[in-house]
Amino acid sequence: MIDLSSAAAFDRALASMPSADPAAAGAARARQQQLTKPPGSLGRLEDLAIFLAGWQGRERPSMDTARAVIFAGNHGVAAQGVSAFPAEVTAQMVANFAAGGAAINALTGAIGMRLEVIALDLDRPTRDFTTGPAMDADECQAALMQGAATVTPDTDLLLLGEMGIANSTAAAALCLRSFGGTAAEWSGPGTGLDRHGVSHKSAVIARAIALHGDAPATPFETLRRVGGRELAAIAGAVVAARHAGVPVLLDGFICCSAIAPLAAVAPGIVDHCIAGHCSAEPGHARLLERLRLEPLLRLDMRLGEGSGAAVAAAVLRSALAAHNGMATFAEAGIAGGA
Amino acid sequence: MIDLSSAAAFDRALASMPSADPAAAGAARARQQQLTKPPGSLGRLEDLAIFLAGWQGRERPSMDTARAVIFAGNHGVAAQGVSAFPAEVTAQMVANFAAGGAAINALTGAIGMRLEVIALDLDRPTRDFTTGPAMDADECQAALMQGAATVTPDTDLLLLGEMGIANSTAAAALCLRSFGGTAAEWSGPGTGLDRHGVSHKSAVIARAIALHGDAPATPFETLRRVGGRELAAIAGAVVAARHAGVPVLLDGFICCSAIAPLAAVAPGIVDHCIAGHCSAEPGHARLLERLRLEPLLRLDMRLGEGSGAAVAAAVLRSALAAHNGMATFAEAGIAGGA
Repeated sequence: MIDLSSAAAFDRALASMPSADPAAAGAARARQQQLTKPPGSLGRLEDLAIFLAGWQGRERPSMDTARAVIFAGNHGVAAQGVSAFPAEVTAQMVANFAAGGAAINALTGAIGMRLEVIALDLDRPTRDFTTGPAMDADECQAALMQGAATVTPDTDLLLLGEMGIANSTAAAALCLRSFGGTAAEWSGPGTGLDRHGVSHKSAVIARAIALHGDAPATPFETLRRVGGRELAAIAGAVVAARHAGVPVLLDGFICCSAIAPLAAVAPGIVDHCIAGHCSAEPGHARLLERLRLEPLLRLDMRLGEGSGAAVAAAVLRSALAAHNGMATFAEAGIAGGA
Repeated sequence: MIDLSSAAAFDRALASMPSADPAAAGAARARQQQLTKPPGSLGRLEDLAIFLAGWQGRERPSMDTARAVIFAGNHGVAAQGVSAFPAEVTAQMVANFAAGGAAINALTGAIGMRLEVIALDLDRPTRDFTTGPAMDADECQAALMQGAATVTPDTDLLLLGEMGIANSTAAAALCLRSFGGTAAEWSGPGTGLDRHGVSHKSAVIARAIALHGDAPATPFETLRRVGGRELAAIAGAVVAARHAGVPVLLDGFICCSAIAPLAAVAPGIVDHCIAGHCSAEPGHARLLERLRLEPLLRLDMRLGEGSGAAVAAAVLRSALAAHNGMATFAEAGIAGGA
């Protein structure tokens, strides 16, 4: 397990990131050329299989031990009236996850993927970051490490998601501090704000960014000041997964925003990540562009809780079924192979 | 079973098409509003569930009896050198389907969907349509009815696909005769032609269209003159499915081209159809626009044999898992429901 026990260790982990296994990726690429289809004709399915082969270090990758991990947190900034839902819905939805009634339960269930939900101190919301840092250093550190601790090297794919009323406000603040632009560009309706609500949210975000303007622009400081526990946990999980050679499947705007501060200083952090989808939240397309990730699906989803990534996981399963299950031209005795 | 036993009966079937069940669609729409998520936040997944509810006539649609049916045919126009693969590959791939080694086997297997392959007189290719009609009326009629015969009312979703060396040339000719434009606009690399190959293919298509220019512009005549057996079978299956209330999941350019002649006179023919994906074959995006179908996936696939639709079927399964499996706000005891 990579050491993430201090802000300096976190920086070091970002500065020396391992690569995929080129031999395994090459073997998978060669296999795709031999399968009974015109070369390249499975398009992105071929790329996905080769990507997973590289990160899993074997010609025929699997999703047998794939896991969805959903982090939940509560946000002090909810007091600013930035969400269409009251803050107690975070805990109610965590109970719904436990009872098996949420979208992510149904979606992971449909593909037989394990689901774990990690609620991070829901009774202790972060502080309202329009008046000070959301977390102190110990709190942020603990959340990072709780995220990292969910990564085990025997996981063949890690799907990440989140739940947290008001966390699209934190997400927008993370993006704005990481990539610049205006608060309005990163603000959207989230779970369902109207035009006035979005405009108010945007003003709240602008205020927060002004307050923290003089703080050091490090990933840790950005996560600590305008992030949240579930966002720091996702960042920790993504870094730990990279060092454990575990490919990551990212969900929507909020999930992806957790790595914005990391990507701003270490753009290669996304190399082991797949963007499961592009959400309807307007900031997501902009963020994916900054992260240089091409989303797999565009289904106008905007729920979070890992739901878009879980639909994408069904597509990954199809990609691996073709890669691992198809006959080669030689096996099938077919002319060509172009 | 709707009567498709003559060209006139086919026209009648196109002139009086049943609609989806508005009560079932309405009940599904109401259910989506009550599930534990912000209304609309599952985006296209919600639309898909409501669509299937309407056509299956029940609030909670299923895919328990979903079937993939792949039609294969051989084409006289292959003699014009319009494909990167030799004509015998059609039969070899049908053998590969039977042996379970093709992409469609792996992709339907991954989601537990039944697969049937129907080879249509492979030893008797259609005639080269640059010198005369591809089929006589009896041959075209027989293919239409073989397609229609695959539809049973207990099928909850019918996935259609095709295999046939040179059939992207027939597909382009069907589109050109149905929707106009130029041969070049509808011609693409198919299984892997280079620039010169595409240009030659485009000239072959232009020649064919000129030859059949004076023929009546009816769906039957277009399918008969520049189509093929597997294409007429798909057209027959789509019409029969409509009259049996069976929703259809369409594959790529060639599969969709089979309904171009129908849509040119009866645009509502697509109302029970889902475009599974937009393929990399350039004519497909143009065709989907003409058909007014918004594709579910864009994965740069260009294999045919139902493969893109089979990946889309995995997404449909996710949509139904959420629709049927999630708790309502009342069941979960959650605040809001906005």
